[in-house]
Amino acid sequence: MTHLTEDAHGVYVIAVTPFLPDGGLDLESTDRMVDFYLETGATGLTVLGMMGEAPKLTIEESRIVVRRILARVAGRVPVVVGVSAPGLAQIQALSTAVMDDGAAGVMIAPPGNLHTDDQIVSYYHQAAHFIGDTPFVLQDFPLATGVHMSVPVIKRIIEDLPGCVCLKHEDWPGLEKISALRAEGAVSRRISVLCGNGGLFLPEEMARGADGAMTGFGYPEMMVDVVRHHRAGTPDRGQDIFDAYLPLARYELQPGAGLAVRKYVLAKRGVIAHATLRRPGAAITDAARAEVDRLIERQEKRLKEIG
Amino acid sequence: MTHLTEDAHGVYVIAVTPFLPDGGLDLESTDRMVDFYLETGATGLTVLGMMGEAPKLTIEESRIVVRRILARVAGRVPVVVGVSAPGLAQIQALSTAVMDDGAAGVMIAPPGNLHTDDQIVSYYHQAAHFIGDTPFVLQDFPLATGVHMSVPVIKRIIEDLPGCVCLKHEDWPGLEKISALRAEGAVSRRISVLCGNGGLFLPEEMARGADGAMTGFGYPEMMVDVVRHHRAGTPDRGQDIFDAYLPLARYELQPGAGLAVRKYVLAKRGVIAHATLRRPGAAITDAARAEVDRLIERQEKRLKEIG
Amino acid sequence: MTHLTEDAHGVYVIAVTPFLPDGGLDLESTDRMVDFYLETGATGLTVLGMMGEAPKLTIEESRIVVRRILARVAGRVPVVVGVSAPGLAQIQALSTAVMDDGAAGVMIAPPGNLHTDDQIVSYYHQAAHFIGDTPFVLQDFPLATGVHMSVPVIKRIIEDLPGCVCLKHEDWPGLEKISALRAEGAVSRRISVLCGNGGLFLPEEMARGADGAMTGFGYPEMMVDVVRHHRAGTPDRGQDIFDAYLPLARYELQPGAGLAVRKYVLAKRGVIAHATLRRPGAAITDAARAEVDRLIERQEKRLKEIG
Amino acid sequence: MTHLTEDAHGVYVIAVTPFLPDGGLDLESTDRMVDFYLETGATGLTVLGMMGEAPKLTIEESRIVVRRILARVAGRVPVVVGVSAPGLAQIQALSTAVMDDGAAGVMIAPPGNLHTDDQIVSYYHQAAHFIGDTPFVLQDFPLATGVHMSVPVIKRIIEDLPGCVCLKHEDWPGLEKISALRAEGAVSRRISVLCGNGGLFLPEEMARGADGAMTGFGYPEMMVDVVRHHRAGTPDRGQDIFDAYLPLARYELQPGAGLAVRKYVLAKRGVIAHATLRRPGAAITDAARAEVDRLIERQEKRLKEIG
Repeated sequence: MTHLTEDAHGVYVIAVTPFLPDGGLDLESTDRMVDFYLETGATGLTVLGMMGEAPKLTIEESRIVVRRILARVAGRVPVVVGVSAPGLAQIQALSTAVMDDGAAGVMIAPPGNLHTDDQIVSYYHQAAHFIGDTPFVLQDFPLATGVHMSVPVIKRIIEDLPGCVCLKHEDWPGLEKISALRAEGAVSRRISVLCGNGGLFLPEEMARGADGAMTGFGYPEMMVDVVRHHRAGTPDRGQDIFDAYLPLARYELQPGAGLAVRKYVLAKRGVIAHATLRRPGAAITDAARAEVDRLIERQEKRLKEIG
Repeated sequence: MTHLTEDAHGVYVIAVTPFLPDGGLDLESTDRMVDFYLETGATGLTVLGMMGEAPKLTIEESRIVVRRILARVAGRVPVVVGVSAPGLAQIQALSTAVMDDGAAGVMIAPPGNLHTDDQIVSYYHQAAHFIGDTPFVLQDFPLATGVHMSVPVIKRIIEDLPGCVCLKHEDWPGLEKISALRAEGAVSRRISVLCGNGGLFLPEEMARGADGAMTGFGYPEMMVDVVRHHRAGTPDRGQDIFDAYLPLARYELQPGAGLAVRKYVLAKRGVIAHATLRRPGAAITDAARAEVDRLIERQEKRLKEIG
Repeated sequence: MTHLTEDAHGVYVIAVTPFLPDGGLDLESTDRMVDFYLETGATGLTVLGMMGEAPKLTIEESRIVVRRILARVAGRVPVVVGVSAPGLAQIQALSTAVMDDGAAGVMIAPPGNLHTDDQIVSYYHQAAHFIGDTPFVLQDFPLATGVHMSVPVIKRIIEDLPGCVCLKHEDWPGLEKISALRAEGAVSRRISVLCGNGGLFLPEEMARGADGAMTGFGYPEMMVDVVRHHRAGTPDRGQDIFDAYLPLARYELQPGAGLAVRKYVLAKRGVIAHATLRRPGAAITDAARAEVDRLIERQEKRLKEIG
Repeated sequence: MTHLTEDAHGVYVIAVTPFLPDGGLDLESTDRMVDFYLETGATGLTVLGMMGEAPKLTIEESRIVVRRILARVAGRVPVVVGVSAPGLAQIQALSTAVMDDGAAGVMIAPPGNLHTDDQIVSYYHQAAHFIGDTPFVLQDFPLATGVHMSVPVIKRIIEDLPGCVCLKHEDWPGLEKISALRAEGAVSRRISVLCGNGGLFLPEEMARGADGAMTGFGYPEMMVDVVRHHRAGTPDRGQDIFDAYLPLARYELQPGAGLAVRKYVLAKRGVIAHATLRRPGAAITDAARAEVDRLIERQEKRLKEIG
């Protein structure tokens, strides 16, 4: 398997974990989901992300899901696997296992007890030592991790650690951070910047110098289109499409509740068989379902209008 | 001055604080801003909100701003004044002062050291004791305060404290909370629910039983229209208008950075003379300004399309 | 193996995880540590606690450590195993595994995303459903978890869930909480209350109605003596001993740094072979080592004085 | 009035705010408290500290308290006044006012929304600009502020801002931080380091290079003695005294509850007339009062033993 590199671009969809109504793994839906993401134009997949439901899996289940996805992808696109854990020994063990299974790289979020610039840089030095030459994605998501990485911190990690090939950019607000990293001479090595937050700022992020998205949304084709039109020099067309999906994207970005919405949308679209969330995790209510249905109806109408 | 009541509805715009380029108070812009908000259809104003720049004012300046706004409003709409403070003596002093000046009610956010249900309820009991019969708005904004109010907590406050006439609903996600409060028999007394978060969920919030919005946005007319169309039984028309403004509303909701955007928009529209933020507070960058300009241009085009 | 019950009392020492200088498991030291704790008077052991270094172990290593300790304990005292995890499926899997291995019960800390009273109670309902009839320790440690459990919440958990046989009390300050739980008629079922925080409030906690301690300290004999003298009706003698150890206990309670101190003390006492902390985790500095040596010297002198 | 300088040393007692039983200011007790602190050996006073009850005062009351204390001190020792506030305009106004009244300097804690190294340094640059040549104490108290200042950050502030003459050191654990700041060549200018946390680590802090304490305790003479014996080259004697007070000091350091204990002790000693806390703030319970009484009795006995 080829490794993840600084050239990563496009849309790395953060995969959901499909469950059966009783909470068991739904591996058939997992296959169908992989097919769907790739047909939609995903240039990569990211599994076992920090949010989502990966933390609800047992270690054995995590391995099963990763292997199933890797087998179905069959090398067509790179697969990044989240390996964040409280200890470096665990990160090392997980990283070795998934790279052996065929992953293209790993993603590491900072543990919540890191505060100062030096503490953050030092942690990634240690992590990089433990995972050896495995390429890794630096996850910058303060709202979820509580860890705030300044631009100088990210620069130091890029300069010091060649394994850091990609930044999953999910600070909010974070546009100025992209501009600072992309400024002339900011860093001696250009790494990939893929953005999160459900794509809610993707048009501006692309214009600031991002290479694409690494996040989830019930309609990943929106992100694929925004990235494609940006690269094709037709960003306004991309924004028209973005605007059409925005009412739903906004609705799906509600913290916590959003995952139930995303699974409901994927189930409604026939991608996964059940919208089930594993416990603890609240199901979508009737009222929310009706709101989503209405937003989708309006979205389809608007998409037709803009052709 | 009439007091705020459970019937509060429509759009209570959270006023910005206009400054001169040197950081001094810009009272002429303050007058113009009041006129603008009222012409736009605001049914009330809220000043000295917890976010915004009110905490950057000295006590003397706060009094000057409140009096100027009250004088300009001249009783045309109710004015709510934020009086959150670390101590109840301060809340009492501020509350007495602004009610004497002609405010219609006060708004109280919970201090960040409250954690359990009982602690929160007990705090509001004490606060209500200190402000006497002044009507107050209960501010539920966990992302900013760190305090999470469950539906049972809000119910207990409503049942116990007749002075609580309005909930500023700003939980995120918070739609189910509105539904729970509006459920048949949930509370023995219906209070006003006005929503925050820049209006980003206003169509759904109105459908769930909210009475309007209490928040800020560079184009408050969007919120006025959404509320009006909801009440007129034409919510889809309201949503069309909402959708047209959504790309900018989303951009303006970026925590921290959003206030600079809002002031830039208000200055661009000629409402206030300067987009200045008082320090500490970052100015809008050139790149952000260009992004806002582009979003406004697209917004105007879209508004024309939908008539 | 007998199960943990509401009668749990005395000192359940939270075991450290001994490592070799290269970071590997030091199982011989683990055996010696078990012997030491039991000889010192421990009435139980708790392993894989939330703090400490258990989170730094891989799943396989965790199983090895738990089995080694259970084998060495050989049923002489009950062993509680921490099974806190982000997902209930993991908790179920861990719980089943360690109970099969011979643990007496499990300990569950609340995940940090729980805020309101109902959220906390609901989480324990779900967890109890997943672990079946396994007795569990409710861990109340707000400084580490960020979750604040009120007395009403603890009462509801006790009343609703028969599997909850023990409270690991580690709120700070927390004395009034013990008094409230022990008040006449507070709960219909008396559960065990074992206290944390390195025993720093143990004399007062015993007087308020606690049954002992569940925490770590380089000299667990201090806690054994305090509990013993309290039960023997000679609390002042217990406090004399407590006071002699207090300067070191205070030093060891420094968050983060304390674990390195505890391991240094245990190594100095010959209990474990190496003071090594697994990474990430800072080693004790020369200055700190000298401070600890001095405190131990003074402590020994003082213990001789009081006989 | 002479200004606070880098030579500040000894014990700057953080003054409590005495209240009458009805919550009004007790200015007579305030006078008596000042006398007591000075007779006890305080080399300075700090008023309107961030913790304590200063935030519960109205602006007018704060001015009254500060002026009363300054009048009673009458220039005998330097008085530092806490001026932390959300906005720099407020800090400027407060700082100017208290310096005009005769304060020796001000103390500034970082607002909780600062995260990265650069954000913290930049904030102090701005604050220093606003207060002009007023000497200030840098307050480093992460447990209360949520802001973590690394050694490089403190160094940058010292190097950049000549007004920073003193560090109120209250990190926990924080001993290594003192050592790092006192290391040969660490900074080009030696500032005063006064320690907090109720003096609970004062012997070690002095040995690491601190100049004294800036914190509160019902028996400030303990801190005076520890500092004096350290400077006299008799630290073991200082530690004997420290150890005698430690059981109570530990009890008084309970977050939140500790202030009620301190006021109870001061009232019991006849320093202030009433132990009243202004609301919101819990009174000491009967059980806690009995525990404190017992600790004081034992403390007096032990102090007699050691002569």
